[in-house]
Amino acid sequence: MKIVIDAHGGDYAPLEIVKGAITSVNLIEDINIILAGKSSEIKSILDEYGYTGDRIEILEASEVITNEESPTAAIRAKKDSSLVVGLNKLKTDDDVIGMISAGSTGAVLSGGLFIIGRMDGVLRPSLAPTLPTLLGGKTMLIDCGANVDCKPEYLEQFAVMGTVYMQSMLKVQNPRVGLLNIGTEDKKGNALTHEAFELLKNNKKINFVGNVEARDILSGNVDVIVSDGFAGNIALKATEGAVMNVLKLMKNTINESGIGVKLGALMMKKAFKAIKSKMDYNTQGGSPFLGVNKIVLKTHGSSKAETILSCVKQVVEIHESGFIEKLRAGLLENV
Amino acid sequence: MKIVIDAHGGDYAPLEIVKGAITSVNLIEDINIILAGKSSEIKSILDEYGYTGDRIEILEASEVITNEESPTAAIRAKKDSSLVVGLNKLKTDDDVIGMISAGSTGAVLSGGLFIIGRMDGVLRPSLAPTLPTLLGGKTMLIDCGANVDCKPEYLEQFAVMGTVYMQSMLKVQNPRVGLLNIGTEDKKGNALTHEAFELLKNNKKINFVGNVEARDILSGNVDVIVSDGFAGNIALKATEGAVMNVLKLMKNTINESGIGVKLGALMMKKAFKAIKSKMDYNTQGGSPFLGVNKIVLKTHGSSKAETILSCVKQVVEIHESGFIEKLRAGLLENV
Repeated sequence: MKIVIDAHGGDYAPLEIVKGAITSVNLIEDINIILAGKSSEIKSILDEYGYTGDRIEILEASEVITNEESPTAAIRAKKDSSLVVGLNKLKTDDDVIGMISAGSTGAVLSGGLFIIGRMDGVLRPSLAPTLPTLLGGKTMLIDCGANVDCKPEYLEQFAVMGTVYMQSMLKVQNPRVGLLNIGTEDKKGNALTHEAFELLKNNKKINFVGNVEARDILSGNVDVIVSDGFAGNIALKATEGAVMNVLKLMKNTINESGIGVKLGALMMKKAFKAIKSKMDYNTQGGSPFLGVNKIVLKTHGSSKAETILSCVKQVVEIHESGFIEKLRAGLLENV
Repeated sequence: MKIVIDAHGGDYAPLEIVKGAITSVNLIEDINIILAGKSSEIKSILDEYGYTGDRIEILEASEVITNEESPTAAIRAKKDSSLVVGLNKLKTDDDVIGMISAGSTGAVLSGGLFIIGRMDGVLRPSLAPTLPTLLGGKTMLIDCGANVDCKPEYLEQFAVMGTVYMQSMLKVQNPRVGLLNIGTEDKKGNALTHEAFELLKNNKKINFVGNVEARDILSGNVDVIVSDGFAGNIALKATEGAVMNVLKLMKNTINESGIGVKLGALMMKKAFKAIKSKMDYNTQGGSPFLGVNKIVLKTHGSSKAETILSCVKQVVEIHESGFIEKLRAGLLENV
């Protein structure tokens, strides 16, 4: 089982990516990693960290796609970029089960779409992170930015894809699907959600529980939240931003306070740590790009070695869960 | 100067609303309050709290519009509801400067639109809360739910309305306007934001600083965030929900922890209180419905007396700032 990793994607590439690869082969049996990128840089990090095994392979790629470039143009122009070289390897080598990148979201999505290709029957592949909830479970938010202008039938299919994912990966038997909306009443929303609501309500393959509000991303009241990619991305970033900002405000308030508060904060350290780890999206792996022919995982730009390890585990789990085959079967039933 | 208040809007009506009215006339000079609602109920609360003055007047209305009703249908059908009776008073009495309601958002917006009416030149009135930021200032998010399907030119006008409001009410000289989007790069977004971006960039009346992400609602990096009402509402509720949920998680974690953590939390009480008050949207007054002919303020359903007082102050401030006249002038320049 081989997994390709884009060695030059993300804020801490290539160092943290390569370290993540080393940790992964050390901790997970039966996998080999292919690092796509600049051989000399990768090799010197492997040497530095004393990796001498044969389970990490380097696939030379001389270019890097940045966040500033137009994704589609970059995918076309930079044929020798770590992302494109990696995706081509994923496409052509049957032993490779998936690809991970912490690089430009747009480029990963464009590359996934144009190189790996849409699964038969899929209208629009979509980016679908599973987020930690207050109840300790996870909620999938689908779509989070791959499709900014959606038709109602795309949202219906997001619900099916999300349902299959939560069933196969998280063993949720009958995932509750909610439609992201501006109120919980049936008639709420815009033109898109009005039509999507009817399609979801009448779809027998899913367990549609109605409209949900953005606060349900954290509440754990539903398993899958369906949205167009624009609103989904807004909801995701508003949530992440608010969590981050409240924690920052807390830190600042403590720093500006007297010794009593500071001592109190010290005594609460364990509790703060528990909260932070519960809300920390970075240790949670990556967002799968659902609906393309093989596993493509986009992880946060700020990913470090630990996140890469989580992502490798996630790719293995998705592969072993048979998600892609189940999705293929699930979609065919639709016809 | 008279202000009408819907005595039966909100979760704590009529008790907290009437208490808020009493507090308002006690603390603010030169205003009279008209409470629209069921005379007997209102009177008994006034009696209970010993109010014997002549600055609170009751305007009999026998019906109440609930959150469960279709807003437009309810406005048409319930002519004797506290909301409709109040809005008609606002429309017809030149001494009445504004109306406050904690009732159904949809009904307040429908009523504002159909009874008070759009200002000449306004394409779409919009709901525009100003939210507390981490820097201690305020950011206006416009629109937050009045217009769920928007054209690019609506967003352009939201920017102008928000600019005039921040200038007259918060004395921000040259308010920075951002477009709510899924990334900060110029080309990001969906069909609507692409077109709106060009309009905003070329509008000489506003200080457009480009695309902003949902986390900027709290950051204080911009003064006005422009959005369609669907995405704006999602961003607002995601932010409120995340703040609320993190504080809840903190409380639960403390409760489940040992005596050391509990003692620490006790020592941090002052800091927690400061954080909570900074993030508490309920003491911040209401959201003005910008672009109708008189001042209509929608406040949170969970409003208590303190919030009503903030709202009364806000109506007085809007009135004294000359916002409506300035907006009228600002829009006319457009022609």
